[in-house]
Amino acid sequence: MSSRPANQTADKLLQAAHDLLVERSGQSASVSEICARAEVNVAMVKYCFGSKDGLLDAVLERALRQLTGELQRLAGADLTPESKLRRHVAEVARNYVRVPYVNRLMNERLLAAEPDAVDQISASFAVPARDWYAQLLADGRAADGWRSFDPTLFFFAVIGLCEFLFSARPLLERGFGESIDGDLVERFSTQIAELVIGGVHGPPPPAIVATDSCDPEGAAR
Amino acid sequence: MSSRPANQTADKLLQAAHDLLVERSGQSASVSEICARAEVNVAMVKYCFGSKDGLLDAVLERALRQLTGELQRLAGADLTPESKLRRHVAEVARNYVRVPYVNRLMNERLLAAEPDAVDQISASFAVPARDWYAQLLADGRAADGWRSFDPTLFFFAVIGLCEFLFSARPLLERGFGESIDGDLVERFSTQIAELVIGGVHGPPPPAIVATDSCDPEGAAR
Repeated sequence: MSSRPANQTADKLLQAAHDLLVERSGQSASVSEICARAEVNVAMVKYCFGSKDGLLDAVLERALRQLTGELQRLAGADLTPESKLRRHVAEVARNYVRVPYVNRLMNERLLAAEPDAVDQISASFAVPARDWYAQLLADGRAADGWRSFDPTLFFFAVIGLCEFLFSARPLLERGFGESIDGDLVERFSTQIAELVIGGVHGPPPPAIVATDSCDPEGAAR
Repeated sequence: MSSRPANQTADKLLQAAHDLLVERSGQSASVSEICARAEVNVAMVKYCFGSKDGLLDAVLERALRQLTGELQRLAGADLTPESKLRRHVAEVARNYVRVPYVNRLMNERLLAAEPDAVDQISASFAVPARDWYAQLLADGRAADGWRSFDPTLFFFAVIGLCEFLFSARPLLERGFGESIDGDLVERFSTQIAELVIGGVHGPPPPAIVATDSCDPEGAAR
């Protein structure tokens, strides 16, 4: 893997797998299809990545590192915490459409719970994203009085909010007769951004909510 | 399947599969293990459910119908929309711990996108839950001025918010060194309930957020 030609071959395989998976909306591609697209001998998959799963893990890792890179650019931008959070949520949702295999591969890896793949998802995305959330939540709390959240739990909440529409895509399409297109993703990302932004501020003080005072939580059961 | 003894056998198999999957935190059980627990001949799985997958689909459907039954009881309770939403979110999160196979089976079925299994998840849970959300969102809007949300998109957002912690459990455990126990689930369900309740109210009016006016969204890029 250290020689230059092998690296170039690995890059060609990564790019070909990425392109095929994007063209097929995340549905699988065979090793021979990937190698034909990359114009590389099929033996090179084993040589460069150990196996097809190794190649797919590397494709997923590259895509997740790109997401993490976007987060780091956003961290340095001159924006309010609210604007950063709003943009982040929209970026994550759009990313599932732009790179449709991320969601599927990530969920397959998490279902299989294979330690190396899980560690790779942690290192390339989950841990940096959680750390980014920790900083953002602290900034939002200091600047705008956001509520206090555990950054690790916040990571699972926000990523889940963004991703289930895509992992449950067959439900959206068969159960509700909708299809994932640019318009739906924009509507979704606007709605989830509103939900999260409202969420970090928390509910308004009880005095504003007129009906709540006559039926307080806990009294009715 | 129509005769009484076959129904009783089917019930025994459903209960045995449920019990084994709960004991194993959602990890799989073999047909022979399920039949041994049910004290039923292995041939009855094929007779009653067609296959092991048919049995597992029926186990999942039963669990999802119980969740839907809880929703319907909550719909009739004398509670504010906010209290109903708060309880619902906590119930969904706790349900993933109480019945740990629901999340795993549902995600396996959705990944495989097998039409019959997807239709069953729609009919037994997704469509009734979406309809419940539609009513709740309308009630909350009328009574407490909640923002307007598309109920279908709201369904995917809220279920995703509740479920990713469980579907990404290996990430939580290996990546962050946490484990899913009663305490973590209570902390999580409190945080996601706050997030959703704040979310349906939306952000406070801009005047309250002091720093936002000097750095309006869109001006910085």
